[in-house]
Amino acid sequence: MKMLQSITARTGQPLGEPLCASTPEQVDACASAAGAAFGDWSSSDGGTRAALLRALALALEADRAELVALADQETGLGPVRLNGELDRTAFQLRRFADIAERGVAFDFVNDPAVAGGPPAGHPAMVRQRVPLGPVAMFSASNFPFAFSVLGGDTASALAAGCPVVVKAHTGHLLLSNRVMGLVAEVLQAQGLPAGLVSMIQGGGNDVGVRLVQHPAIAAGAFTGSTRGGSALQAVANARPRPIPFYGELGSTNPVVILPALLAAKGAELAATLAGSISLGCGQFCTSPGLIVLQDGPQSDAFVQQLTTALAAQTPHSMLTPGMRQAFDAGVEHMVGAGALALLQEAGTPEAPRPFLAQVGAAEFIARAELREEVFGPSSLIVRAGSAAEVLQVLQAVGGSLTVTLWGADNESDETRALVRGAMGIAGRVLFAGVPTGVAVTAAQQHGGPWPSSTQPMTTSVGDAAMDRFLRPVALQDAPAWLLARKGQPC
Amino acid sequence: MKMLQSITARTGQPLGEPLCASTPEQVDACASAAGAAFGDWSSSDGGTRAALLRALALALEADRAELVALADQETGLGPVRLNGELDRTAFQLRRFADIAERGVAFDFVNDPAVAGGPPAGHPAMVRQRVPLGPVAMFSASNFPFAFSVLGGDTASALAAGCPVVVKAHTGHLLLSNRVMGLVAEVLQAQGLPAGLVSMIQGGGNDVGVRLVQHPAIAAGAFTGSTRGGSALQAVANARPRPIPFYGELGSTNPVVILPALLAAKGAELAATLAGSISLGCGQFCTSPGLIVLQDGPQSDAFVQQLTTALAAQTPHSMLTPGMRQAFDAGVEHMVGAGALALLQEAGTPEAPRPFLAQVGAAEFIARAELREEVFGPSSLIVRAGSAAEVLQVLQAVGGSLTVTLWGADNESDETRALVRGAMGIAGRVLFAGVPTGVAVTAAQQHGGPWPSSTQPMTTSVGDAAMDRFLRPVALQDAPAWLLARKGQPC
Repeated sequence: MKMLQSITARTGQPLGEPLCASTPEQVDACASAAGAAFGDWSSSDGGTRAALLRALALALEADRAELVALADQETGLGPVRLNGELDRTAFQLRRFADIAERGVAFDFVNDPAVAGGPPAGHPAMVRQRVPLGPVAMFSASNFPFAFSVLGGDTASALAAGCPVVVKAHTGHLLLSNRVMGLVAEVLQAQGLPAGLVSMIQGGGNDVGVRLVQHPAIAAGAFTGSTRGGSALQAVANARPRPIPFYGELGSTNPVVILPALLAAKGAELAATLAGSISLGCGQFCTSPGLIVLQDGPQSDAFVQQLTTALAAQTPHSMLTPGMRQAFDAGVEHMVGAGALALLQEAGTPEAPRPFLAQVGAAEFIARAELREEVFGPSSLIVRAGSAAEVLQVLQAVGGSLTVTLWGADNESDETRALVRGAMGIAGRVLFAGVPTGVAVTAAQQHGGPWPSSTQPMTTSVGDAAMDRFLRPVALQDAPAWLLARKGQPC
Repeated sequence: MKMLQSITARTGQPLGEPLCASTPEQVDACASAAGAAFGDWSSSDGGTRAALLRALALALEADRAELVALADQETGLGPVRLNGELDRTAFQLRRFADIAERGVAFDFVNDPAVAGGPPAGHPAMVRQRVPLGPVAMFSASNFPFAFSVLGGDTASALAAGCPVVVKAHTGHLLLSNRVMGLVAEVLQAQGLPAGLVSMIQGGGNDVGVRLVQHPAIAAGAFTGSTRGGSALQAVANARPRPIPFYGELGSTNPVVILPALLAAKGAELAATLAGSISLGCGQFCTSPGLIVLQDGPQSDAFVQQLTTALAAQTPHSMLTPGMRQAFDAGVEHMVGAGALALLQEAGTPEAPRPFLAQVGAAEFIARAELREEVFGPSSLIVRAGSAAEVLQVLQAVGGSLTVTLWGADNESDETRALVRGAMGIAGRVLFAGVPTGVAVTAAQQHGGPWPSSTQPMTTSVGDAAMDRFLRPVALQDAPAWLLARKGQPC
């Protein structure tokens, strides 16, 4: 039997007893149980779904102290961040409870018959949605609550009427098992089957691949690396019956700063940006990994200010020893690819030091290695000769969760072109503030063109996240009894 | 230089002079020109888009007699059907013109700032959509107008703000070139670039593959076989930057008839179904290729009635010699896989004869070959022992554009279960009428789980078809000048 060992993030020492990896039989059993739970849950009403989601939020909050302490040991993210993340997780469970209760999953378009022959005449049609089926949900390393067992993927899938099989992240195994215990208690208390939300764990990719391949699984949801997500998407595509795979992958999140703003308040922007780059030790999918400047004295001054501000940051430990190794390797790779290091210090075994480098736009555009995400407290300054070259840099990036445009307050040919360029490659465009921090709200879009997402038309954060798990169906000449269900699946 | 030859469908004889296949350079030039046209078209207003779409509809209608005559020579579909299809094509161009003019592509969700820290507090957000970019559109064999140069894919992509490069179908090359000539005239008359809608042609899959691989192409839209669509989807996925590929593929379109209805009006249903199976020589993606019955005397009688009614049908010629060969091979394959032929006649060189076969549910479920679509006037009766076994048959089908449920007028455990089973595998569920004929309307859903579509959350017919080409973007703290554009891309 394969064993898994949780690790104390700050020391690299084993934490607690080893845990058994899920066997192939256990993976299959979870998928089958989710399939068995699907029928009743898919036809549950909004009130039932809301009651489950609210009880799950309450269970997290009730055990807050213990959960946060455990999460802090396993991730080193600190109690302030982790308490905030637990708040957010409970908030989004309740938000999807409200959405379920409002009946959003049961929305329907009523399209009455039009007399006469085609093309104008048509039979009575109704357009509504059905839940896809059991979702294979892959937890992220960097959000032990909000993108994990009870994170947004689980909340939105349950609200849509889909059971969930969670693949726990090895970076916070004890916490995941503890939260899964709470889930099991809530399911039992509400008279719901254990298979509605279950969990598997494993050290390699074998359990996850087996889960995605299981015939009962109808969709995948993933937050993590481009490499891991691409591999699982290929598995989803290679099934005898391919299924949608929603991967939220890597992203460099360019920050474009226009010269006039830089001249006016460079020092302030440098401090803000340094904080965002090192926040959570840079372990955010929206961490600003690229800063695009136009040549000029204000940019020279800003680079100095940012180097100084970033040097003053003291990041905490990274989530796992593997991620620290990947960060160190990524920094080496970036320098090897021709980036000029402005700030490169060895760090301690416990925590890395921030990394900052600079490169010319032409080189950045020519060398794909320079466009790879370095996950951690790292950013690359790209120096462009003109606004037109800034646009070429964005085109070379091609896809990102966010683009931040500072200094586009006034309309001009240049700002219009930059906004068009930014919107053309990003899921979210910010005009103030920093990209780290993704609000859970109606208009949010957390997903963009490749490589930031496998399905750029969808979002993994915000109200529209539920749409990933609902498939449209048209009913033609539906009988009265079915129409009376008003969009609720049978 | 590779040459292409149009064929008279009814005789198999060459029609007109040979045409040159597009060279790789021509394919690249079309994609690049579409990329160059994207900027202005993506920021065009609804009125501009509507004017183009309406002028295209008018141009089709103005040359109706000539176009229908040419289409009839190349496809053998007959003037009644082809005039109706031209009407439908003009209708959907005008429908997307209306949609563009109403500003549907510019819809936005305004999500004002909420004071306070996260998770409840958040910055001002707006959710709107941007056009994806140039679309590679693959024409279908079986709809020389409605799923071709100016079909629904082109109309919805243009309405969304996307240029289109059409891959002409070799089954109606002369018509496609004639229609493309009209398009070029309209573009010129409206002062729009020729690259906004252009066309390539080729005999093998090389030009299509090259088109999908071109960096300027942002999405694919395809109507055709599961094999062809899967191959192109794999190309789209294997790009350095994968793109969405919307494939509307093969479908068996099960028709489930409940015993009571069969007993009451079996003869009438048999006549209706025989007409639908042989309509257009069975060359519809929604042709009823499976009929699922429960054992009993009413089913035995119905099978006789259907056999007689289908034997009385005289299908016209198939679209191309290759499709006729594929039909004959598909019939052999079905019989070889164990289906009992009820109606199997050789046909003439000009036209096939309808094929009808029968098989038990257990065999159907066990043998995947029996579930393959036979494109043409063909249907397979599946005999189930119970309503539960009917559900297992639907489960084995797994994905279909349509399921038709005749006799589910009253609510019961059985009808609820059947509706759930049908909605679980289909994009459209019909309770009356036949699946052939897909209304162009607000609630339509033409797309379902694999193998009927590559992207089952989307539709290729109806108002929602435009959504395939619009990607959501969230704007955070957008400046006033940008908000004043009210969702219109820069």
